Amino acid sequence: MADPIITLTTDFGEDSPYVAAVKGVILSINPSVRLVDLSHQIPPQDIRHAAFFLATALPCFPPGVIHLIVVDPGVGTERPLLHVEIDGRRLVVPDNGCWTELARIASRPPVVRRLAEPCYWRQPVSATFHGRDILGPVAAHLSLGIDPASVGPVVTEWVTLPILPPRRDASGLTGEVVFVDHFGNLITNIPAALLAELAGVLDFRVGNQRVASRVRTYGEAAPGTLVTLISSNGMVEFAVVQGSAARQLQLGVGTPVRVLAPVQS
Amino acid sequence: MADPIITLTTDFGEDSPYVAAVKGVILSINPSVRLVDLSHQIPPQDIRHAAFFLATALPCFPPGVIHLIVVDPGVGTERPLLHVEIDGRRLVVPDNGCWTELARIASRPPVVRRLAEPCYWRQPVSATFHGRDILGPVAAHLSLGIDPASVGPVVTEWVTLPILPPRRDASGLTGEVVFVDHFGNLITNIPAALLAELAGVLDFRVGNQRVASRVRTYGEAAPGTLVTLISSNGMVEFAVVQGSAARQLQLGVGTPVRVLAPVQS
Amino acid sequence: MADPIITLTTDFGEDSPYVAAVKGVILSINPSVRLVDLSHQIPPQDIRHAAFFLATALPCFPPGVIHLIVVDPGVGTERPLLHVEIDGRRLVVPDNGCWTELARIASRPPVVRRLAEPCYWRQPVSATFHGRDILGPVAAHLSLGIDPASVGPVVTEWVTLPILPPRRDASGLTGEVVFVDHFGNLITNIPAALLAELAGVLDFRVGNQRVASRVRTYGEAAPGTLVTLISSNGMVEFAVVQGSAARQLQLGVGTPVRVLAPVQS
Repeated sequence: MADPIITLTTDFGEDSPYVAAVKGVILSINPSVRLVDLSHQIPPQDIRHAAFFLATALPCFPPGVIHLIVVDPGVGTERPLLHVEIDGRRLVVPDNGCWTELARIASRPPVVRRLAEPCYWRQPVSATFHGRDILGPVAAHLSLGIDPASVGPVVTEWVTLPILPPRRDASGLTGEVVFVDHFGNLITNIPAALLAELAGVLDFRVGNQRVASRVRTYGEAAPGTLVTLISSNGMVEFAVVQGSAARQLQLGVGTPVRVLAPVQS
Repeated sequence: MADPIITLTTDFGEDSPYVAAVKGVILSINPSVRLVDLSHQIPPQDIRHAAFFLATALPCFPPGVIHLIVVDPGVGTERPLLHVEIDGRRLVVPDNGCWTELARIASRPPVVRRLAEPCYWRQPVSATFHGRDILGPVAAHLSLGIDPASVGPVVTEWVTLPILPPRRDASGLTGEVVFVDHFGNLITNIPAALLAELAGVLDFRVGNQRVASRVRTYGEAAPGTLVTLISSNGMVEFAVVQGSAARQLQLGVGTPVRVLAPVQS
Repeated sequence: MADPIITLTTDFGEDSPYVAAVKGVILSINPSVRLVDLSHQIPPQDIRHAAFFLATALPCFPPGVIHLIVVDPGVGTERPLLHVEIDGRRLVVPDNGCWTELARIASRPPVVRRLAEPCYWRQPVSATFHGRDILGPVAAHLSLGIDPASVGPVVTEWVTLPILPPRRDASGLTGEVVFVDHFGNLITNIPAALLAELAGVLDFRVGNQRVASRVRTYGEAAPGTLVTLISSNGMVEFAVVQGSAARQLQLGVGTPVRVLAPVQS
């Protein structure tokens, strides 16, 4: 059987030694583990970015992989640390809601435990680096095959990130930009499936900008064209072909989005 | 035998979930594969950058490694996706010319197949993310040992990136900057071997700037000195010692380069 | 037994092909090795940054791991390349002092060898890329189990980075900022242990800025508050809660730091 895998998702950046320290601690506990970097460029303490990231990426992974997530503005305060099982995936993560969007799209309710067993922690535990001292060590021990039940008791309450759903009204749909990717594409919270409920030629607006060109993929319009399309995770997206919609329109997360249907007469 | 290796080279950036999604899909198909990140910071859709990157890096790898390359401005259009064998190396790559510079320096012609067998793809295939839905899954299946012939038919035509060779004339050589590295070094398309054909003390110019100091390595001149030397891949290079030539001279890819030989009388 | 591990710490950046080339060369020599990226974002040629990075990160790793470090402004000059054993850790590193801070906190003196055996090098050796041609290949051969004594003779002199210790005087402690992390936290060279020697309510200053709020962890003060606390590596640190102290105060490495104790009467 293949060696166990721990993935790492953090806001530590590529230039500071915190990622390296966590990797060293994990390998000290389980020298056989395979480490897979997902990202260390989650914007500092940006839980919403982490939530979108995890909900997009983790469903692609097979069951059994252990996912270590360290985006933790509350480090050292009373906020709990959690072990979460969702559809066979296993997360070790602070209790700040960054995983609840992933849970929302899962097929079964999560099983959540509060990390409470210091024998799996690095001692002494610092006040500011629980990735190195608690989360990393617990992930490493889990990769050695310990029973998840041993890390701490099941809990039934946790922080949930308030996710604004898109709203339907007489004139169409209202939503917002929830993620800006590396290409400057603006991804919204409006699922493609909702568009099918609207009849006629739709009118797309992001901020004050009307988007006239609706395409299936980027290459269907000329470079520089502002287009709308369905993103690879099934949401309404705005993009500039071979350019950056975020930069060109100077828009970002939170920008209101409208999809207007022609009035039915 | 060691577990198979898939390397990843993309323009996805470190901050978005696309790299993570591709890794998850690959590990879902082959949980034993070893993933090796080459770069996720190819500038967005910059095929020339990818071409230089691949021609510099991939010859260092042993045969048998599978190289997944996702720099794909044409995603979702009719552009084919390819499996390419070059000197025992195996690439899974869009048909946009980013690999043809690597082929040019190979010892044998490449064997090129068009990916045409959907049984190796992730379903449903999105219009905008073939790295996750086609290229990644095919690389993963190849790492499981399937016959490359099964991924699709051999093709004999593909997109070739037009690479401008340096020109020789009576006064010397003319070329251009083809790559700016992380240190701001300006790397040209003029091979060191061509310099040997020129007699006398050579006169190097990058843009309008004369470069008087010719060295073997950076540390042979004082910090801040603009120098020319032979790059680690055997090309004429311009650098500022312990500084950035690109920033100091405000020059980049495409800048004309001249190497002038004294007039023979 | 698990396959051997080589970690990589470089200033090559994520966008250039040098990291990839080194990985390829290593895997060509030892296809079974596991590569673990620590950072490729050490600021170009910044030996002090590398020194802090290594002293913080490497003590977290288990013995036996091979650490390849390529921050090498002197590449191609007469500066030696070294194999260093410190407390069971093994480094392959240029002789520029970037590892001596790590040695200072070790429990035993290091055993240092000068790389002198070309049979472990890639040929021909370039003048500008010893990471690919010497350091990487030597690390790969070490991972195959060769005797460290075979890489070259023991040496007893090497470059040491001058590290300014904090100074104690009648009014308190004087030190400086030695590292700015990805969050903009300012980490100093003043160990927490020294604070215990000072009586009374302490007065912290970084540059000209008085820091009134002393906390155990970030979350104990409101977002935007400038605080001082003990960093995860046990040093006096200045931070802005959920912000960047470096950006807000416009301060960086080298900024003077004072800790003043009330006058004892």
